[in-house]
Amino acid sequence: MRDHLIIIKVGGKIVEEENSLRSLLKDFSRIAGAKILVHGGGKTATALAEKLGIKTQIVDGRRITDAETLKIATMVYAGLVNKNIVAGLQSFGNNAIGLTGADMDIIRAAKRPVGKIDYGYVGDINWVNAQAIAELLGNGAIPVVAPITHDGKGSLLNTNADTIASEIATSLSSKFEVRLIFCFEKHGVMMDEADEKSIIHEIDPILFEELKAKGAITGGMIPKLENGFNALRRGVSAVVITNAQGISGGLRGTRLVL
Amino acid sequence: MRDHLIIIKVGGKIVEEENSLRSLLKDFSRIAGAKILVHGGGKTATALAEKLGIKTQIVDGRRITDAETLKIATMVYAGLVNKNIVAGLQSFGNNAIGLTGADMDIIRAAKRPVGKIDYGYVGDINWVNAQAIAELLGNGAIPVVAPITHDGKGSLLNTNADTIASEIATSLSSKFEVRLIFCFEKHGVMMDEADEKSIIHEIDPILFEELKAKGAITGGMIPKLENGFNALRRGVSAVVITNAQGISGGLRGTRLVL
Repeated sequence: MRDHLIIIKVGGKIVEEENSLRSLLKDFSRIAGAKILVHGGGKTATALAEKLGIKTQIVDGRRITDAETLKIATMVYAGLVNKNIVAGLQSFGNNAIGLTGADMDIIRAAKRPVGKIDYGYVGDINWVNAQAIAELLGNGAIPVVAPITHDGKGSLLNTNADTIASEIATSLSSKFEVRLIFCFEKHGVMMDEADEKSIIHEIDPILFEELKAKGAITGGMIPKLENGFNALRRGVSAVVITNAQGISGGLRGTRLVL
Repeated sequence: MRDHLIIIKVGGKIVEEENSLRSLLKDFSRIAGAKILVHGGGKTATALAEKLGIKTQIVDGRRITDAETLKIATMVYAGLVNKNIVAGLQSFGNNAIGLTGADMDIIRAAKRPVGKIDYGYVGDINWVNAQAIAELLGNGAIPVVAPITHDGKGSLLNTNADTIASEIATSLSSKFEVRLIFCFEKHGVMMDEADEKSIIHEIDPILFEELKAKGAITGGMIPKLENGFNALRRGVSAVVITNAQGISGGLRGTRLVL
């Protein structure tokens, strides 16, 4: 039997506000066994860009990343947010190690080709170094992964954290029984955004298409669910979308099924 | 016989300008065997602080680090500078991994007590995790260490890169035969700053005290030499102060002796 591995992606305000971060890290630190944390940090990046007078452009939930924006993303994601998470986990006795795709060459990506939109220094993942990540896990380390990858030619690339989480989950599913948790502000996927009780406990690709067509599922939730279904199709055992409390309280929230 | 380990500390403009950085990384990537790169990044941090309207105060070559300055140091050292070095080394086939003291708990520090001067979030090193670093080296990884440590209680701390380099060198000297190279803009330690040819090929603590008293050695060179002599006294095999070209061309520059 394969060992269990839990991969938690946290984004939004949860990792960017001191109190919610500390509470999240406390819950995360109590999870036994192999685990990986993947994080975002977009709000802090946007705020820093604003202070520096650099305009943030987001198209379909993806940040247009010119050279200056890449610097900001690298500073905020790989520096500020990543290292505060690592120091926090260490304080809870978790042997965290902060990583970008460049570190130990764990995630190789290619700059997205310019189509209708030029996303700039945005990377699409080519390859995850499952062996290197499995070795770290085997040594008891807890990888904390920032949404920055590299092209192997010396350039860093900004890469969506949901995609990183699901690509890592998929690549490690031959070695581990992987559960992938997308953790954000809401309880899960809602039928009606305004009604907290309208949470969908299980969603399959057919329901997803219906809700997308109706406009009930929009914005950043669309790629999140697409990433999740892809991960399930490619060997990941379970995918759940939940809020920060969902980490400690079992897997409440919305469960993806095929 | 112990294996060789070379630890190179690079600071100043060398790591902060794209051309000199690339050339340095190329030279560094050609060094065979176990190696560690420790870097600074102060000029970029100062420039970012200035853009954000945060005043930089430096006393005796040490940055006064309030909460905002710590954020900037973390972003610049652990994010921008560290990850660009890692991506650059990966492009030269070196399996670099960027680390702060918090990552894998490799360097534990304590916030400097407030004396005549309150340095703020500045850390004095208590402990280097030689075992964790040796394991990384044993796996063929090349640690790239940013001048940020942690206190084990969740706080990051700004820590002098020269000190980090000499503490790592000392702690690993029981496992390796360690050479420590401080690499900066000048050829080495000079009798007369204005005269390039006045380089001192060998310096011992007596000559150091003489030159310090005369005012020939000043500023950041004083802690650099003190760190170097301490490292020699505590088991490091060789300490050299040189410029970027010194990395590829053998160990030219100023050699410290006891």
